[in-house]
Amino acid sequence: MAADITEQPDGYARLLSAEYADPIARVAAVIARRRPRHVVFTARGTSDHAALYAAYLTEIRLGLPAGLASPSALTVFGARPDYSDALVVGVSQSGGSPDLAEVLRVARASGALTLAVTNAPDSPLVAAAELAVDVAAGHERAVAATKTYTAELLALLMLVEGIRAGDGVLPAEERAALDALPELAARTLDDATPAQLAPRYRFAARLVTTGRGYAYPTAREAALKLMETSYLPALAFSGADLLHGPLAMTDPDVPVLAVIGSGPGGRSMREVLPRLGERGADVLAVGSADVAASARMVVPEVDERYAPLLDILPVQRLALALALARGEDPDAPRGLNKVTATM
Amino acid sequence: MAADITEQPDGYARLLSAEYADPIARVAAVIARRRPRHVVFTARGTSDHAALYAAYLTEIRLGLPAGLASPSALTVFGARPDYSDALVVGVSQSGGSPDLAEVLRVARASGALTLAVTNAPDSPLVAAAELAVDVAAGHERAVAATKTYTAELLALLMLVEGIRAGDGVLPAEERAALDALPELAARTLDDATPAQLAPRYRFAARLVTTGRGYAYPTAREAALKLMETSYLPALAFSGADLLHGPLAMTDPDVPVLAVIGSGPGGRSMREVLPRLGERGADVLAVGSADVAASARMVVPEVDERYAPLLDILPVQRLALALALARGEDPDAPRGLNKVTATM
Repeated sequence: MAADITEQPDGYARLLSAEYADPIARVAAVIARRRPRHVVFTARGTSDHAALYAAYLTEIRLGLPAGLASPSALTVFGARPDYSDALVVGVSQSGGSPDLAEVLRVARASGALTLAVTNAPDSPLVAAAELAVDVAAGHERAVAATKTYTAELLALLMLVEGIRAGDGVLPAEERAALDALPELAARTLDDATPAQLAPRYRFAARLVTTGRGYAYPTAREAALKLMETSYLPALAFSGADLLHGPLAMTDPDVPVLAVIGSGPGGRSMREVLPRLGERGADVLAVGSADVAASARMVVPEVDERYAPLLDILPVQRLALALALARGEDPDAPRGLNKVTATM
Repeated sequence: MAADITEQPDGYARLLSAEYADPIARVAAVIARRRPRHVVFTARGTSDHAALYAAYLTEIRLGLPAGLASPSALTVFGARPDYSDALVVGVSQSGGSPDLAEVLRVARASGALTLAVTNAPDSPLVAAAELAVDVAAGHERAVAATKTYTAELLALLMLVEGIRAGDGVLPAEERAALDALPELAARTLDDATPAQLAPRYRFAARLVTTGRGYAYPTAREAALKLMETSYLPALAFSGADLLHGPLAMTDPDVPVLAVIGSGPGGRSMREVLPRLGERGADVLAVGSADVAASARMVVPEVDERYAPLLDILPVQRLALALALARGEDPDAPRGLNKVTATM
């Protein structure tokens, strides 16, 4: 898991190289030409969080309605929605889950434009889709997904910005911002704070994670990563949903991991932090925003749109360090397999 | 909270009476005539689970793509998705959350057909929408939503079936199945099992809930209800997602509340139960399926489409009994307000 985490800056550089960026640009140009009216993502586990990020990008950057489909409506209940106006995107590291391939097959049969985003170009998901994007993360050794998650994020970002450009070719300013990411990711991973913080949560019985907008997928992925590796029950809520009920769950014994960037999403978290303060919550702030918190994992400042590619890095390192501190084996979480086949 | 729970069978009967069913049928007929190409729901907290149920109904019964929108993309990041092909539905007990009203305003301005489903006909959400459905649950005394949740479920079910019929008028068979629900709900609430089971979970440190398809919203709502009233950290996963990672969280110390009906969704949970068994999980089975489990809350058998209207009832009673057993005040959960204003 440590090796997978370390490889992420190189993975960003690889995906941004012409070998992988050009095919993504060509896929983006095809999608732009076909002008889908809305976008439906389907994914599970970690990839579901990458899909959620892409849904925010789709609505904000493309002005297209976006949603996440529940495969079971189709695979278990036989629903046959008319996807003829839609781009339907399956996101999966392995490309091997039969239910996602079935969603793409059904969607394609109803006239949808279909796309598989995977780390496995020879997978059933790619075979089921009209278009495919290879996230090119290389073999992932640990069961807990790290580098394949961030590769999915970057590939989906490049794809959305390519669609926005129309011809798949990113504007120079966008390209420059992306080209800065490998170096920023390396700098983020150089920070020793996560390992130093791990003992602080050694005896935590549970954890709450939160974030809004682009930071919400990071909060969800943070919760899953901590659950998978440390068996630490972690509840993820959008900053707004937290105020609608689960706030009652927080008290001084429950650390709150809050993902707070420098932008509209981070600013909107400022109504959440005082409410957490009233409840005496111990807040670990992750991100570039300079906020008062019990502990911080500081990440270089970038537009919030890019922040998910950096913010998750110290969280992955925290999950790894915490698993080791708790005597667990993060490379072989109990009860899990790398490819999960569900219908 | 006990009084709110008890009133649910009467609430079903009221909503099925001509006074409330006829306006729902008229709204359904308008929607059917306008032929939206896809449906977008927006909601928070408990209402989000009612919206999720409606999304399954929309895909399975209407063959229309359905998704849940994140208000923050619009309200925080200024996204202006083109919803001109869509029916956009805001679901909210109070109708008072500014962000949901903003989503409906933006959607309406882009040409969407908009609908507010609320328990508050004079609310800002109703004012923002072109169409409105009153779920007619009456004043809810407790902060934790119970009767407004099930009223939303039934209203959304009547609406979807009315759209399916085309003219809003339900086929006789459908109408008969709905008319049976008040009596079935009363019988479900007569069962003393939930109160008897509460001591079993008195000292549980956390809980996992799971279900698939129509039962997944019930699993989500069960988790939220237990969190709101008993501060019991409860993690909800679809049966399929559970196998993709969070299975590692289950062990003999973590009770699993599994919602399992008699139909395709329940059958698809049969791949999940043996995996839980391997991990020594203590399973509380809720629903009509006759499965081997550590404990059961048996609910009358109905088509899985109707099961969410019954399955949640013993869970609400369990949440109430457990809160009392743990010395909490379920009528006044700490840190919560009835109407939550987020932007």
